[in-house]
Order: sequence, then structure tokens, then C-alpha cells
Amino acid sequence: MMHPDRLFPADPESRVLARRLYDTVSGLPIISPHGHTDPRWYAENQCFPDPATLFVIPDHYVFRMLYSQGVRLEDLGIPPRDGGPFETDPRRIWRRFAENYHLFRGTPTRMWLDESFSTLFGLTERLGADNADAAYDTIAEKLQSDAFRPRALFERFNIEAIATTESPLDDLRHHDAIAASGWTGKVVTAYRPDPVVDPDFEGFAENLERFCEITGCDTDTWDGYLEAHRDRRAYFKQRGATSSDHGHPTAQTCDLSPGEAEALFQRIRSGGYSDWEAETFRGQVLTEMARMSLEDGLVLQIHPGSSRNHNKTLFERFGRDMGADMPTRTDYVAALKPLLDRFGNEADLTIILFTVDETVFSRELAPLAGHYPCLRIGPPWWFFDSPEGMRRFREAVTETAGFYNTVGFNDDTRAFASIPARHDMARRVDCGYLADLVRSGRLDEDEAVELAHDLAYGLAKRAYKL
Amino acid sequence: MMHPDRLFPADPESRVLARRLYDTVSGLPIISPHGHTDPRWYAENQCFPDPATLFVIPDHYVFRMLYSQGVRLEDLGIPPRDGGPFETDPRRIWRRFAENYHLFRGTPTRMWLDESFSTLFGLTERLGADNADAAYDTIAEKLQSDAFRPRALFERFNIEAIATTESPLDDLRHHDAIAASGWTGKVVTAYRPDPVVDPDFEGFAENLERFCEITGCDTDTWDGYLEAHRDRRAYFKQRGATSSDHGHPTAQTCDLSPGEAEALFQRIRSGGYSDWEAETFRGQVLTEMARMSLEDGLVLQIHPGSSRNHNKTLFERFGRDMGADMPTRTDYVAALKPLLDRFGNEADLTIILFTVDETVFSRELAPLAGHYPCLRIGPPWWFFDSPEGMRRFREAVTETAGFYNTVGFNDDTRAFASIPARHDMARRVDCGYLADLVRSGRLDEDEAVELAHDLAYGLAKRAYKL
Amino acid sequence: MMHPDRLFPADPESRVLARRLYDTVSGLPIISPHGHTDPRWYAENQCFPDPATLFVIPDHYVFRMLYSQGVRLEDLGIPPRDGGPFETDPRRIWRRFAENYHLFRGTPTRMWLDESFSTLFGLTERLGADNADAAYDTIAEKLQSDAFRPRALFERFNIEAIATTESPLDDLRHHDAIAASGWTGKVVTAYRPDPVVDPDFEGFAENLERFCEITGCDTDTWDGYLEAHRDRRAYFKQRGATSSDHGHPTAQTCDLSPGEAEALFQRIRSGGYSDWEAETFRGQVLTEMARMSLEDGLVLQIHPGSSRNHNKTLFERFGRDMGADMPTRTDYVAALKPLLDRFGNEADLTIILFTVDETVFSRELAPLAGHYPCLRIGPPWWFFDSPEGMRRFREAVTETAGFYNTVGFNDDTRAFASIPARHDMARRVDCGYLADLVRSGRLDEDEAVELAHDLAYGLAKRAYKL
Repeated sequence: MMHPDRLFPADPESRVLARRLYDTVSGLPIISPHGHTDPRWYAENQCFPDPATLFVIPDHYVFRMLYSQGVRLEDLGIPPRDGGPFETDPRRIWRRFAENYHLFRGTPTRMWLDESFSTLFGLTERLGADNADAAYDTIAEKLQSDAFRPRALFERFNIEAIATTESPLDDLRHHDAIAASGWTGKVVTAYRPDPVVDPDFEGFAENLERFCEITGCDTDTWDGYLEAHRDRRAYFKQRGATSSDHGHPTAQTCDLSPGEAEALFQRIRSGGYSDWEAETFRGQVLTEMARMSLEDGLVLQIHPGSSRNHNKTLFERFGRDMGADMPTRTDYVAALKPLLDRFGNEADLTIILFTVDETVFSRELAPLAGHYPCLRIGPPWWFFDSPEGMRRFREAVTETAGFYNTVGFNDDTRAFASIPARHDMARRVDCGYLADLVRSGRLDEDEAVELAHDLAYGLAKRAYKL
Repeated sequence: MMHPDRLFPADPESRVLARRLYDTVSGLPIISPHGHTDPRWYAENQCFPDPATLFVIPDHYVFRMLYSQGVRLEDLGIPPRDGGPFETDPRRIWRRFAENYHLFRGTPTRMWLDESFSTLFGLTERLGADNADAAYDTIAEKLQSDAFRPRALFERFNIEAIATTESPLDDLRHHDAIAASGWTGKVVTAYRPDPVVDPDFEGFAENLERFCEITGCDTDTWDGYLEAHRDRRAYFKQRGATSSDHGHPTAQTCDLSPGEAEALFQRIRSGGYSDWEAETFRGQVLTEMARMSLEDGLVLQIHPGSSRNHNKTLFERFGRDMGADMPTRTDYVAALKPLLDRFGNEADLTIILFTVDETVFSRELAPLAGHYPCLRIGPPWWFFDSPEGMRRFREAVTETAGFYNTVGFNDDTRAFASIPARHDMARRVDCGYLADLVRSGRLDEDEAVELAHDLAYGLAKRAYKL
Repeated sequence: MMHPDRLFPADPESRVLARRLYDTVSGLPIISPHGHTDPRWYAENQCFPDPATLFVIPDHYVFRMLYSQGVRLEDLGIPPRDGGPFETDPRRIWRRFAENYHLFRGTPTRMWLDESFSTLFGLTERLGADNADAAYDTIAEKLQSDAFRPRALFERFNIEAIATTESPLDDLRHHDAIAASGWTGKVVTAYRPDPVVDPDFEGFAENLERFCEITGCDTDTWDGYLEAHRDRRAYFKQRGATSSDHGHPTAQTCDLSPGEAEALFQRIRSGGYSDWEAETFRGQVLTEMARMSLEDGLVLQIHPGSSRNHNKTLFERFGRDMGADMPTRTDYVAALKPLLDRFGNEADLTIILFTVDETVFSRELAPLAGHYPCLRIGPPWWFFDSPEGMRRFREAVTETAGFYNTVGFNDDTRAFASIPARHDMARRVDCGYLADLVRSGRLDEDEAVELAHDLAYGLAKRAYKL
């Protein structure tokens, strides 16, 4: 089902080169420094219940495409908030998915699924209405075997280290359970404080109260609020965290005086703030996070520019993360200046910038990261974690920022079964790109070999200190 | 004159694949669901008078390029509004065009012209100063024969259906004449209400008055104004219309209360409105059009982002549509939200989004259309209706929105003779893209065959209900 | 060290075509109509002192990359403004550069350096820590020979004409010295008035005073200020200038009445102006420059969109031009309208537009230049003067603006030794692009031959009147 030379250049000589490079990295362990798998899986090591629960229900890439062509979310097993009816038979969900499998033609989702079906579950035919039940049965059966439990898959996937993402309000019990279990798989957390940083986050006021309770800090004052972050970052760091992550509407940063920050914090706490004040607050916290990173060494990741929960009806009916987050135009050069004026020249600080607006790769991110010692460019994110997206990324950033201001690949996924396929895709695309550089006289082959290793493994390991 | 493998990938194996795919679709009938040919041609079936009138004078792609290099519009046969002198000898116009034919190197216009010259008129040499007169004579002679009358060409072009575009103020007499003639060519209209929707349109106040007269509705009130649209849409629908089309400066939509809308309408009617009020009005009408589409089934097309008549001097001297419309940066995610909050989840509604700002393909249009059931992405428009433009379109949208959230090709042209060449170009580029997907292991060949057919024929037919 | 087919397409047949085209232009003289080499070099014809001073210290492409990876500017020989210590041993600077040479993999800088090392200095191995000293010795020795003096290199590079860039406050003594020397190398100046046009330029008030002294014009009035420009442009023109150049934060132009302009000028002079007034002033001067160009024939170049001296700490510590200029989103369609409304239809005026925001190539610059007789599109600038940047440029602009609304290549460099490599890179990329057009049936080979010559030589010579 899988073409052995998939994603390599068409030209035969370039293809041979790409394959030669790929053969040197295809077996490397996976470093997954940023993602959204559920730590409970590794803690409890329970079997995944069925194919629909593994592949369809939690994957917003999958259900957004089906939804765009008229399939109702209820019919894909997603429960409405009002307790209304929804499909609970995983086989029927799977059939709906299978009979619409053609919708994924040309998408990376299709390649990840095919590779999981083929490599993990031994399917030999393209999924469709005809073979939906047989595929279901094959996968369902395997899922009940020990070889398909999360830890066994983790080892089979050759994962050297994986990071999950938690809120400061999370007690990290699953991480503690993993540590206590004696299992040697390396699963670390990452500090994602949006629920206590973004005034527009659902339940922000209650979140602040819990933040206070958990940390014992006085979150009625700006200083106490910062102290609570410090406290919680240390707690996360003890559970292996090497990074924080921030998902803001924009990349805006600010650098207020302590007095201004205190006054702003009080307006934010009061709830009577303007959009601009919320923006300033998030921006000020980013700068504070950079300051804390200089103290505790956590890598700072910024994931800006997504308009969350764009579909009002769906948000009201099903809640957040329903495949309705939309990229927006995002600027960095002016937005990051306050933070960079303060900390931009710190070579001991690492800030990794992501984007869902490709236009900034060549215009802003590569020029910024090609100059400021603290800045690195994250791999293509979300909709751009795809063959064309990755290729455009390399073509847009390398000429200005080189390779060493990038940080390798991360899969950013909650779809566990897709992890090897995603890393394999990145390795193939990068080797294809390197092969084209060699073929066109822009790089020597021995350099390409070294780079292939760094892009697949070394850069992520070093940038994220894993 | 025409390379048989033109626009196919360079790699020999990919080229063979592309040709194989193309051979399955090159003979399919043309569905032309959006364009600007003159219905009078089909109604009256008169011969086209001469080569310059067919190829040069009405084609703003052609004369804008000549103008950019210093050729005066008067010398290309375009009459100034003040009655000043202009070239009236078509042969002299043609010579000016021919001696500047090198300016079109590398442009799609050049390919469309070459293909028309070669396939339709049997020319065997590239046009230039040397052979201008001979080419003129050959074309001119053929144009006088019955085989080159509009209906004969329509049939020779294998057009299954074509849509023209008319204002609500048009009486559609030519469409009635076509229907009455007994000729079986399918020519439908499309509802383009900009003259009565855009307060900044020339003669807007008088247009509203005529709108009132024609429909018998009281266009002094918002409700009456909407009723007039409903009335006129029904009239268009009777003449085969399956779509409306809207050419606004931005993609802004609004969702006002009836009271707000009425108040705004009165300010607009008074003429004393601000830029923002005009924008809001256009945006409100778009949302109303979506509402009407749910009632009458017309497909809603939005063509935003063009700064019309940018060249003030030329506009004053020659009027509109003088090749001086300029694309502008266009945003969709925020702009469409009011309409989508209201109707975004309606699977029975079809809204087709176009753009002249390529940056939105991957950032906004693909994520939106890959989620909202009502949204589809139109083919690359205007300056992007070109080999590189089409290729970038596929590469930018497919990975996120797939193929089935796109709607095939439309030619959008008033240059009748170029229609087969334009559809052929799209088929070639799409087959080349599909071949590359197959060659790189991203698609099976049987899927590519199915997709080639859909992209060339099926998707346009289904999306536009033709 | 250099692949003979570097930068050509991978497909063998396309590669043969590209090479055939390249062979017709590789030996053409260099027209360098826009750059930043130091006229003193040609005037005094002194040897370049050492490899670090030639290749590292003055090249912000080089030191920004090293800085981004933690190398201090002091350690690269750049003197702090406060008189603090910095590395003065060129050999140690060179070693730091050599041991970090891998950072440049995939960048155009690497190719330019390799080509200089190989072609000019006969190095046969890739630079690295191991061979740093040997390379240093080889280059250092050659630099002391007469064959490596600036004039000898100028001739060896086959430069037919080169432009430098000077402020109106420069007395052009080096140009006078060149003229007086009897040497026949053609070195002309270009008029770059930013220091007396941009109110935010360091020392603007003093600059205006000197502008007054030098010209004898009364720069206390708007009319006198304009007269000073006229006077100085004439002075520059006598030293061979055929162009002016303007590096503004945006492309904004304005068209004020004389009274408004006078009032604005007085506010600007007073120093108590707003950001918007500074923007308006710069925009008004651009329109005045266009008016003067119609009188004196100087070509008007606009280089907008760079956020200068973005790194505050570095600016304070080392001054301007420290590799910290960052591109920003730049719009042209609305920004240029005031100037175009006034002079856009003048076929005798040439305005060359540059950008550091690639998104405008297809959206704004190609549509504008493909219509307005006065407009031309400059080659890809700064970070985009690179193989992928050049290729994307051609793919983005050609289909709408053709080739003849572009102006060939310019190197825009202060790195003298890189000039032949830069022009060679442009010639290779353009020939590769033309080859692909021929291979895909979009252009005849005889046309490609003609175009290759124009892109490498003819267009620059004609556009810049050199």
C-alpha cells in the first residue's frame, strides 16, 4: 500500500540521492518534543478500545473534513453538550469514515492513516466502503492484544522521548504514575498556562482561584501571580518539563513597568477589561515567561495566530477543539520587539516561534531567527505539517536562517498511532530537499548526511534539551 | 506551434503519467459556470467582425500589457469618452499587437492566443511583425464563414453549458431570444447585483430607481429592497441562472438586526454615508443573499479584493474595465464570520470563495472550506488563472481542504475564442499535479483518473447544479 | 569545489537546455546598476588588507548568521561605539568564521563565498576549522598582489558599469578622483537622500543644515528644500548618476497642495511631528522626486518595507547596519496611488519597485507594473537575492507582468568579491527558469536565448540608462 520512494523527488538521480540520505535516518529514534498525547495512556497502559476511538473520534483533522462535506458530528460519535443523542456504535462510525475515505485524497491525513493501517495493522488494501468491516475487525482484534497497548506501541515506535502538554491546573498525576511504575519510557510534560494567562479563556476567573489554591501564592497581586507561575514551572520541571508553550491569538509581547503591570493585572482580574488590555496582558506574560526561562532554563514556545472556536454554533453545541480553529494573518517583527528589546540578545534563552501564516516564514521568522541569538523557528505547524507545507518551509527559511536556527520536527499530535508516520514524512521530505540541494550543487553530500541526521534527531534533542 | 506535452512535468515518468491522465479528460465537454461572454453573440449569431475586435480590443489582459509598455489605448481602438480620436482600422490595431507580441512571453495570454491561432485558425508560425498581415488575412477570412459564427464555435468548443453574467437591471432579452430560437446550446445567466448593492457603483441612486421600476417593489424601504432582489433572482432563475455573483472590495459580511439594516439602508439611500457604512451595507447584503440562496437554491459566489479602476486618469478618460483593477490584501476568517455564524453550518447552501490574494489559499480559504459545510473554494481567479497560479493553488489548498471542497475550473472570460484553450490549460495543469502525486506515492493512479474527471468536469457541474 | 551545472533544473533534458542558454550569457559583461561598494576602493586602488576585512567584518549577511548562533560581534572585529575592546587580529576573526562555516549551508552566502574562494583565490577545499589557516594564508598573499587591487578585480570581473550609492551630503570626491585618474572603469553614483528626507534618520536636523550649506538653497522653506534636491541631483548627475534611491519604512506616497506641503515641512523642521506626519512627509518627497525625475531623467528606485535597526541593544552598542534590519508587511496598491494618480501614465518616467515582502509580487507589483507605463519591478531584494527567492520571483511576476516590465539583476552589495558570483547565480537561475518554460512548451528556444541575454544584460542597461 505504501510506495517505498514516496515523497522523494521525481528526477531519478535526485531520487537515488534522497533514498540514500533517508536510509541513514529512517531508523533513528523519535524525539517528540511537542505534542498532545494523553499521559493517561502511558500511565494506565490500557488497550485502545476500538478503531473509531483510536482513529476518528479524537482527530479533528479527520472529522473536520467529514463535517465539511455534510457529515454531522453526532454521527461521528461526538457528544453534544446538551446531552442530545449521538452515535455510540464504533463500527457505524468507522463505516461512515470508510465510505468517505476518498475525501482525504491528497491530504497528509490520508498518508498517515494509510501508513498506520499498513505498517501497524497489516492492512493491504486502500480503505473504502467495501472493506470497511474487514478492516475494522482486523484493527479491533489487534488493539486487544498486548502488543498494541500504549507502552508496547511507544517502544515499537522507537520513541526516545515524548512531551505531553498540560495546564498549570493539572496535577500531573499520570506523569507521577508513569514515574512510579518503573517503566522506562521517557514521557515529560510541558507547561501550557493559557487557562491562567488568557483572560478570554473559558473559566479564567475560576482558573485564577485554583491557581492560587494549588500554589499557595497570593494571586490577587501581580507579584503573587508571577510567583505562582514560578512555583508551578518548578513543579512541572520536576516532572521532566523542558519547555513552556503559549497559544495566543497574536504574537504580541509587552514590556510594562511593574506598576503598570500591577494595574493592568487588577483590571484583568476585575473582568472589566478591553480587548486591547487582554492583548497587553497576554503580551506582558510572554515577556515574564522569557524572564523565568532565563532563570529555570525552560524553552519558550509561542504558537500564535489561531482564531479559536470560529464556528459559534458548533462551539455552543460541542465545546472547543471541534476542528473550527482558523489561521489568521500574524505579524512578528513589531509584535515581538518589546520582548526582544529586553531579552533578544540572550544566547542562553531559547524561544521557538511557530506560525499558521506561511507568509511570515521568509519575511519575518527567517530574518528574525537569522539574527537574534535567542530565536529559533519551529517546524511547520498544524495545516502546514504536510509534504508541501514542509517543503515550502525549508525553501522559505533556509536561505536566510540556515538549518541551525530551526529545531527539527515535532508532531504536535494527539493521534498516537500517527506518530511514526508523521516523523517518517518529515524525514522523507527533508531528505528530498537535501537531495535537491546536492543535485543542484548547493551542498556536498557529506554535509547532507550530517544535516539529515540533525533534522531528524539532533536539532530537536538539543533545542528542547531532551 | 503547440507542444503536445505542454504544461506537463519535466520528469519523463511523471510526464507519461500526466499524458495518460490527460488523455482521459481532454475530450470532455466544457462546463463554463462563470464567465463574461456576451449573450448577444449566441442570440444573434453574427460573425465576429475582424481579428482585432475578436482578440485585442475587448481583452484587458492584452491591452494592459501593451499599455504598460507605452502603447496608447487610443491606438488599440479604445474610444475615449470625450469623443476624441482613436484608431478605427482593425488591421493597424492588429499590427501594433503583432509587433509587440514578444511582450506576452511567459504569460498565459500568450498560450491562449497561440492555441486559438493554431487550433482554430490554422496558423503555423508564431505571430510577429513579419507575418502580422498574413495572419490577419487568414483569421479575417475564416471569421466570415459560417463555421466561425458564435453558435458554430460554441458547438465546436464542445461547450455543454455556459453562464454569462448580468446585472439585475438587464432585461435578459438575449437569453430570451436564445430560448425562443430553438437552438439547443445551453446558455444561462448569473445574477450579479453589484450595481444595486455597492453604494459606490457609478449611478447607484439611479440604479435603485430602475430596480424599483423593473420589479414593482418599493425600494424606498429595506424590506422592499430585499423583495426586489427576490423578485429579480426568480426572474434570473427562470432564464437558467443557478448562481449569483458578488464583486466587493472586501469579503466583509454583516448580520444586523432588521431595525439596524433599515436605518443603514436609509443612510445609504440618502447618499450621505461613510466608507464604513458602505462596507457594512455590502456586507449585510451578502448575508441576505445567503439567506435567499437557502430559499431559491442559487449558488453564492464571492469575488472580493479588487481595487477597481485604480488608474484615475484612465478611468476618467476611458471608463471602467480598462485593465487597471488591482488586487489587494484580503482577509476572510474575520470578514466572513457574521455570515457563517448565521448560515455556516447549512449543508444545503453553497458559497464559493474566490481571491486575488494568494496568501489566503493555505492560511484562510482551505481551513475554512475544509470545515464549514457551506463553503467551497473557487478556482484561481484573474491573474492567477495561469499555469503557475493553478499549480500553487492546488499545492496550497489540497492538503487542508482536499479536492472535494473545490469546484473545478471556470474560465471567467469575455474572450470567447480563448475558452477551449483556458479549459485545456486547467486540465493539463491538474493532470500534471495529479501525476506528481502518483509519482511521489501520495495517490493511486485509479484515484487520479477519477479525480482528473472530477476536476475537469464533475465538480463544476455538481457545484453549480448545471 | 563548484558544480558546473549548479542551480540548473534536475531533469536531464531541462538541464541540457539550461546549460545551452547559460553558455550564451555566462561571459557577458556585468551591469551593476544598484549597489553599495565603496568608491574609495576604485579611487585609491589600495590592496584589500586581509581576508577578514574583505569577507567577514563588512558583510552583514555573514556576521548576522554567526551572531544568531551566539558569536559576539566584538569577536568578529566589530568595534563598539563606547570604545570597548574588540578583536583586532584578522586571523582570529577568520578562524571563528571558518569553524562556523557549516552555519551557512543552504544559504546563498555560502555559494557566493565558495565561488569567490574557488574562482578568485584558487582554494580547492571547503572551508572549515581544519584548513582555516591555510586558506587565510593563500587569500592574504594574493590580496597583496597587484592583480587583486580593486581596479584589477573590476576588470577581471568584466564589469561594464557599476553604481555606488551616496547621500546628498557626500561630496563625491572619490568619484571625482576616479574621473581625474584617467582609469576607464565606469563607476557612477546614485542619489540616496534618506538622511535629508526621513525625519527619523539620525541627525536629520543637522543634515538639513548641511544640505542648506552645500547647496546654498534656503532649506527653511519647502520650495528651497526642493530646490536643494534639484541642485544636488544635478551635481550627482554630473558624476554619472542615472538614478535616485529611497529606503522608506513603507511605500506610502502623497500628493499635497503646495500650501499643505509647506505647512507640513515646517512641522517636520520643528521636530514636533507625529509618526503620521513623518510618513506623509516621506510620501510627499517621493512624489516630488518623481516630478524631478520627469525633468532630469533620473530613474526612481523605491526600496520600502524594512524595519531598520530592530535590535535596540545592538543599535545602541554598535550603531546602524548591524544585520538587524527586518522585513515587514508592505502594501503598494493603495500606498502608491497618490503618486500614480499624478504621474502614473508617464511613459518617460521609470519607477523601479523593490520589496522584502514576497506576497506582493503576484498580488500587487506584477499587476501594477503590468499596467502602469512608468512602473517596473526590481529584482528580488536582500534576503530574496537567492536561488529560491529568484525562482519564486519569476514564477510570481512573469505570468502577469511578463519579462519586459522587469529590469534584470542588480547585486545590491557592499561585498565586492561576491559580485561575479551574484550575477552568475542570477544568470543560472534565470536560465533554469527559461529552460523549464521551453521544456513545458511555454516558450520557444529562440525566444529563451533572446530573453536570457536581456535578463543578464539588456534590461538592466536599458532600464538604468547605463
